[in-house]
Amino acid sequence: MTLVNGHPAESVDALDRGLAYGDGVFRTLRTEAGQPLWWGDHYAKLAADCAALNLACPDEAPLRAEVCRVAEAGEGVAKIVITRGAGARGYAPPHHPDCTRIVLSAPLPAHAGPDAPDDVTARWCALRLARQPRLAGIKHLNRLENVLARAEWDDPAIFEGLLCDDSGAVIGGVMSNLLIAKAGELFTPDLSQCGVAGVARTRLLRALERHGIPHHIGRLLPDAILAADEVMLCNSVIGVRRVGRLDDVTWTPAGWTTTLNDALYEDVD
Amino acid sequence: MTLVNGHPAESVDALDRGLAYGDGVFRTLRTEAGQPLWWGDHYAKLAADCAALNLACPDEAPLRAEVCRVAEAGEGVAKIVITRGAGARGYAPPHHPDCTRIVLSAPLPAHAGPDAPDDVTARWCALRLARQPRLAGIKHLNRLENVLARAEWDDPAIFEGLLCDDSGAVIGGVMSNLLIAKAGELFTPDLSQCGVAGVARTRLLRALERHGIPHHIGRLLPDAILAADEVMLCNSVIGVRRVGRLDDVTWTPAGWTTTLNDALYEDVD
Repeated sequence: MTLVNGHPAESVDALDRGLAYGDGVFRTLRTEAGQPLWWGDHYAKLAADCAALNLACPDEAPLRAEVCRVAEAGEGVAKIVITRGAGARGYAPPHHPDCTRIVLSAPLPAHAGPDAPDDVTARWCALRLARQPRLAGIKHLNRLENVLARAEWDDPAIFEGLLCDDSGAVIGGVMSNLLIAKAGELFTPDLSQCGVAGVARTRLLRALERHGIPHHIGRLLPDAILAADEVMLCNSVIGVRRVGRLDDVTWTPAGWTTTLNDALYEDVD
Repeated sequence: MTLVNGHPAESVDALDRGLAYGDGVFRTLRTEAGQPLWWGDHYAKLAADCAALNLACPDEAPLRAEVCRVAEAGEGVAKIVITRGAGARGYAPPHHPDCTRIVLSAPLPAHAGPDAPDDVTARWCALRLARQPRLAGIKHLNRLENVLARAEWDDPAIFEGLLCDDSGAVIGGVMSNLLIAKAGELFTPDLSQCGVAGVARTRLLRALERHGIPHHIGRLLPDAILAADEVMLCNSVIGVRRVGRLDDVTWTPAGWTTTLNDALYEDVD
């Protein structure tokens, strides 16, 4: 089911700036029994991303109600898209934009279901992410880099591609954030220049703080990934997933993925 | 009037990848008496941009017919958008995408009409363009940088903002390409790292070649702009326009704008 500005609809205005320029933001979240998971974090991130692009964020309660309304029975995925709405041709944002709000649901993908394997296979992508601090971290609708990176492979055995920026720093996966464990400490890439700072990553960083587990946000080079004790991917749909293979390199479990998954789902907020 | 996949329509599928990811390309062109101006160049650029993103480009004759069908009486603007179509959630491009084709018209903007002033005022933008060679030159739908740059000013007296990349090189205007004249030679920024290589620029470079006017594509720093004999902006809607003022710097005409406008509209191909 899809709601456009609160009404069941299949389509949006052909002049919408989300289509014309990718002028908007989005969220992908998990739903269980008709309720959004980690709603507070998702709404906070949506509000922050809207603010970063000077978009009006919808009010929280009615938006949550729309997510519940579209949610699949059982487990599923919901997506929220906020755009700057339809406008006249030209890049100049309207002074009083009438934002478009799209809320839709989809079945839980197989790779996120209960039968998904504990560990996944990843590869290095050839595409290098451009560094744009003005857009870094935001889950905006300008995602051609992700599309091109994802188009680099077609093998269904490969779950995710890892991306570096044009300085050679590892940023994360095409659709996930990256964490590594080394000698009892956790590391995740700095996302101040590019990448998306996802809600699962934010929740994990908070949990690490809460549990007193040493952790660092910084510049990570590919060698650091290869030398890690455990390499993990996370997002709001898959939770934390261990990388068992990265091209020709393999890892056996070091125990971190279970620890972090438990921490990720703690409901302490 | 708007045509979506050849049929009059006001809307597109809410799941279109053009909206979800900016996964597509577009063209803006001028129409006169129901006919597109510089059609051959526009179609060639559309085909090249589609190829760069592995999109199927529509056949030329029916696409041209759609542009003629939507075109305003008298002078106007037409826009063509090609997206990878509606698809399941996820960055992976469908194996056999059913591309969406949008063709629409708009009135000629006042700033491109016969009463528009010969010279325009520009400003420097604070935003720095990220360098992504994989997308540079392409007129794709990921245009948040342009939107943010255009949002930097609201003064209607300012026609255009000039953008540098994060290395400090001048790339062009928010909606136009840049050329400068200095000591009898013309210079325009290299667009291999970012920016859009517009059809007007391409036509001008070809005309300069044809007329034996020395010209260079390369790295231009802001000081070179300020030291130019004449600074010009071009695109398919405005033609060539002289910059009379750039923040606090002013120029008097050196004659190049007239020469280049004449060359731009030569119909020799």
